[in-house]
Amino acid sequence: MKIDGIPYRSIWREASGEVRIIDQRWLPHELRIVPLRDRAEFASAIKDMWVRGAPLIGATAAYGMAVQMAADPTDDSLAQTWALLHATRPTAINLRWALDDMRSHLTPLPAALRAAAAFRRADAIAEEDVAINRRIGEHGLEIIRKISARKGRVNILTHCNAGWPATVDWGTATSPIYHAVEAGIDLHVFVDETRPRNQGAQLTAWELKGHGVSHELIVDNAGGHLMQHGEVDMVIVGTDRTTANGDVCNKIGTYLKALAARANGVPFYVALPSPTIDWTVRDGLSEIPIEERSAREVTHVQGRDDQGHIVTVQIAPDGTRARNPAFDVTPGHLITGLITERGICAATLAGLAAMFPDRSITRLG
Amino acid sequence: MKIDGIPYRSIWREASGEVRIIDQRWLPHELRIVPLRDRAEFASAIKDMWVRGAPLIGATAAYGMAVQMAADPTDDSLAQTWALLHATRPTAINLRWALDDMRSHLTPLPAALRAAAAFRRADAIAEEDVAINRRIGEHGLEIIRKISARKGRVNILTHCNAGWPATVDWGTATSPIYHAVEAGIDLHVFVDETRPRNQGAQLTAWELKGHGVSHELIVDNAGGHLMQHGEVDMVIVGTDRTTANGDVCNKIGTYLKALAARANGVPFYVALPSPTIDWTVRDGLSEIPIEERSAREVTHVQGRDDQGHIVTVQIAPDGTRARNPAFDVTPGHLITGLITERGICAATLAGLAAMFPDRSITRLG
Repeated sequence: MKIDGIPYRSIWREASGEVRIIDQRWLPHELRIVPLRDRAEFASAIKDMWVRGAPLIGATAAYGMAVQMAADPTDDSLAQTWALLHATRPTAINLRWALDDMRSHLTPLPAALRAAAAFRRADAIAEEDVAINRRIGEHGLEIIRKISARKGRVNILTHCNAGWPATVDWGTATSPIYHAVEAGIDLHVFVDETRPRNQGAQLTAWELKGHGVSHELIVDNAGGHLMQHGEVDMVIVGTDRTTANGDVCNKIGTYLKALAARANGVPFYVALPSPTIDWTVRDGLSEIPIEERSAREVTHVQGRDDQGHIVTVQIAPDGTRARNPAFDVTPGHLITGLITERGICAATLAGLAAMFPDRSITRLG
Repeated sequence: MKIDGIPYRSIWREASGEVRIIDQRWLPHELRIVPLRDRAEFASAIKDMWVRGAPLIGATAAYGMAVQMAADPTDDSLAQTWALLHATRPTAINLRWALDDMRSHLTPLPAALRAAAAFRRADAIAEEDVAINRRIGEHGLEIIRKISARKGRVNILTHCNAGWPATVDWGTATSPIYHAVEAGIDLHVFVDETRPRNQGAQLTAWELKGHGVSHELIVDNAGGHLMQHGEVDMVIVGTDRTTANGDVCNKIGTYLKALAARANGVPFYVALPSPTIDWTVRDGLSEIPIEERSAREVTHVQGRDDQGHIVTVQIAPDGTRARNPAFDVTPGHLITGLITERGICAATLAGLAAMFPDRSITRLG
């Protein structure tokens, strides 16, 4: 999408062949574009969260493998690079998937052909992500179009960042929004700041500003009040993991917005690329373990001081303990629909099975 | 209550007669105790939020009037001080009430008697607040005691700060907690940080730590998840204004916790001194205008940097607009009970009228 009028992706190849990314650690305060020149730099970029978001992590790992194949296309190099990159964020499903995909494509090839094949395959992985997100956007656009036809301006609330910087382009929850803007629909986005890591304030507000989408930042506490007063027409969020039953595991706080949406008759949609569906899990509440992260994320906040330095400040008393569950589970019964690349389905076992008969049936016991 | 073992109030008279307060702007990072020596200092303390919380503001204004009567007990002085102090926070109901009360007590007296009478009356206003909060605590204690008898340790979630620094002592929502701790009941408090002003992180965590109450800070997003997993036994919050129907206007985000409590079968209580009941309002959602505060509260966060300085950092992109509703309304039907100084009643017209027949009947048309 655009940053101040100029189209970007979150990872791309220059004409010279050099792979570049936006170093997202400095957003929203600085747009730093950096090249990734060897596998060590790719590993740092993933591990230290210069890039984040499952689809982008996968694409970055794929390009990392390609760059290494250009330097050293041997079997040893391939195996070592797989291990090096996989160790950066071992629980990231897309990372593992992308690395396995690259390895299975490259292993049968003679070493001399591997570099070119690796870049082609990494490009394909990136393009596939863009294509999935584009289709999510096209399906979501139809929902927004209907609301717009009924009432004019459409007010959309979103939580966390399921935007283009978490993917190669378009984002997931933001893709319907960008498609609607490009279709000329009048809309406005309420951006949950999304404590504790403030991805809404730091990333969603930044990307919507860059693309020229009308928006306002709100604290996570405010959404219920806005819905009570008819100021929200729909909610769209992303998801880290969706169960076969249609339960959605997403950033902490999503569940509270789903409850408020239900209580106030506001449609609540989840945008998801189908690879985030975990067909092995049925009941999200009992079966998904929720990661608890560092207390410091709660007791400290990062921002820019009045001298322009990025600093971290402590907001709680010295020694305060904190609980920091990173995700929560929104039961499918609170979700109006799942927006996938194939279309929109109910957040139920039947809804998902009908949309993905090729994937669900073999895996449900 | 205690700060590291030493009993404090939020405002008090020294043996010398000097009035002192805790300058709350520096909490939780520094405990600064300052004297208020003339009406200008009292006005600054209220206006610039060295003190906050309706009951404490009222008591501070009363002492401000008393200090001025010692300096100049004339009618002109009385009138000017009323106006000066009232202008500091003109929408604060308790401020107006305390100033009117002082004026009506002092006006009939000869000037020579006013100073002593004013201090006696200010003391009485402060003691009355303490007594109301103590009774709220005694009634709330019985709820906690019953849960404890059933399951042992009681986990309580609270939002914002309705603690002793918002009152003269005990607090409102915290009073049942302190009473339960003093009764030897095993309990733990989850403290919502309460964006955007972080009163939970800055004040509630601080006061619970000071008094030695087990607690953990959580982001406002986390409470729903904890309730889903049975980790919260009850919610207690305060209120800025309660309607005759039992609707509660409290800090933004309270409503989301009430929805989560209802969805998960968690009792949701509101602690309130009866002066915060507005008998002239029935339906909170349609009749209470919600104050919208500065966008800067959302886009910037105050804390202590690693050099120990209190600084403000920007967390959103330059120029980001924000909506900042300060309060929301929780409908009475989501509230398990109102804990008042007279006892616990249903959050309904009938419940409140039965508890306050002397006040409600004359005002309901």
